[in-house]
Amino acid sequence: MIRVVESLKEVREFVAASLRRNQKIGFVPTMGAFHAGHLSLMRQARKDSAIVIVSIFVNPLQFAAGEDYDRYPRQLAKDVRMAESEGVDLIFAPSVAEMYPKGYATYIDQTDLPNKLCGQFRPDHFRGVMSVVGKLFNVITPDTAYLGQKDYQQFLIIRRMAVDLNLDVDVRMLPTAREEDGLAMSSRNIYLGPKQRKDATCLYRALQRAEELVGGGTNNAARVMSEMKRVIQRVKGARIEYIAVVNSETLEPAKEIKGKTLISLAVRIGKARLIDNILV
Amino acid sequence: MIRVVESLKEVREFVAASLRRNQKIGFVPTMGAFHAGHLSLMRQARKDSAIVIVSIFVNPLQFAAGEDYDRYPRQLAKDVRMAESEGVDLIFAPSVAEMYPKGYATYIDQTDLPNKLCGQFRPDHFRGVMSVVGKLFNVITPDTAYLGQKDYQQFLIIRRMAVDLNLDVDVRMLPTAREEDGLAMSSRNIYLGPKQRKDATCLYRALQRAEELVGGGTNNAARVMSEMKRVIQRVKGARIEYIAVVNSETLEPAKEIKGKTLISLAVRIGKARLIDNILV
Repeated sequence: MIRVVESLKEVREFVAASLRRNQKIGFVPTMGAFHAGHLSLMRQARKDSAIVIVSIFVNPLQFAAGEDYDRYPRQLAKDVRMAESEGVDLIFAPSVAEMYPKGYATYIDQTDLPNKLCGQFRPDHFRGVMSVVGKLFNVITPDTAYLGQKDYQQFLIIRRMAVDLNLDVDVRMLPTAREEDGLAMSSRNIYLGPKQRKDATCLYRALQRAEELVGGGTNNAARVMSEMKRVIQRVKGARIEYIAVVNSETLEPAKEIKGKTLISLAVRIGKARLIDNILV
Repeated sequence: MIRVVESLKEVREFVAASLRRNQKIGFVPTMGAFHAGHLSLMRQARKDSAIVIVSIFVNPLQFAAGEDYDRYPRQLAKDVRMAESEGVDLIFAPSVAEMYPKGYATYIDQTDLPNKLCGQFRPDHFRGVMSVVGKLFNVITPDTAYLGQKDYQQFLIIRRMAVDLNLDVDVRMLPTAREEDGLAMSSRNIYLGPKQRKDATCLYRALQRAEELVGGGTNNAARVMSEMKRVIQRVKGARIEYIAVVNSETLEPAKEIKGKTLISLAVRIGKARLIDNILV
């Protein structure tokens, strides 16, 4: 039977009991509104660990004013059922007041990585992500945490945070889950109307075009980006936020594609800000 | 027998073994150069906990350029003997490279408290303190941590950090240790020449004068501060950095002394920056 708790105190008790039994803890931090991507993370955690904990918390700290905090989808009852069918042991679904009580004032931040890619357009976003994930890691003390590749920059930053702050957690990345037509699964796809939903495939098509070019021997990053741009620009109403070819560890722009490279983009379609990436 | 280790890995192993034996951990974070103040923290930890861990690390992150990082006193062998005589179980004395390896990029920061009092004169100081203490808390997982009242602002900030980041540690403050003439013990007192050492008693004398005034019914903060200023200014070569009367929780300036109030000051004498405070 899955348990759902809302207080830090209850999580602590659950975690303490697990540790007393010497059980490894796998953890999937989420904002809820589960799709197949979330479920694949839970499934892997279930394989790896005696205890699987999932957090559901739409974290206000990682949304800027004017972003979609208020309309971000919330569906706790449905999420609980979905998590239960993946064998999750505990869902931690705290209130904002539980996570950020009156007087809350502490933040985790990082130089370098958070200023790249999405960080250029969402200046305090990763600070909010790190702060909440750091809090969750501290209370859940996972052995392993699971994140999806769609949010590759987030993965890098959280892994870096864990290493830097001596958090003894293995931060793992699993592949992006995709719809049949290639669209990366995202809780935000719900913002897309039917026409926009079709248009939204342009991100993956642009990435496929990039992969094709690289596979065919093109290693000039500018060339790859301009081809990707063409793919997106063919879609009316798709506004490019960025297209980037970067070193997959430092996120520094790559001129040539050699060694591990991230090809990444953010595109706005209607009210949705969509991101996707591949590693080549 | 006291153990001295330099690597995070060894601390982790020691801590894991202690936790397996269900032993409570008391922790005293220090920069070494022990005086009676440090020893009183260790003694209390020894009373409270099965395991006492002391860290010795002169943390570069909390010194600004031009401050005394390079000349801060270092005396590991002597410190180890002193800690041993207090019954400390483990000293963790890492190198800078162990704490901040190449690529280190993560910081813990806080709004509000770090900008007050000393923070106005040492802008990134408390960010450095929080980052290192956060790291140490994560690896040592203490039940209780002990800090001295001399660094009252540091105590408040670290306690706030622990609460905010869901670190399950009780952050306790113990009284300032003083020399016979009242000077607050500090590793930095070593910077004082014989004449300056005498002059340095002005901080405590100013605080005693404040206490006397408050005890006598004066509750006007401006009055108290101006009397303190007079005490300091009588000492040639004592340069006031700040004199403050503030709410002891928020560190906001108090106009009237009512409820718990912190009276605090920072004074430069020669090469030494000295701080002291009392709670009234």
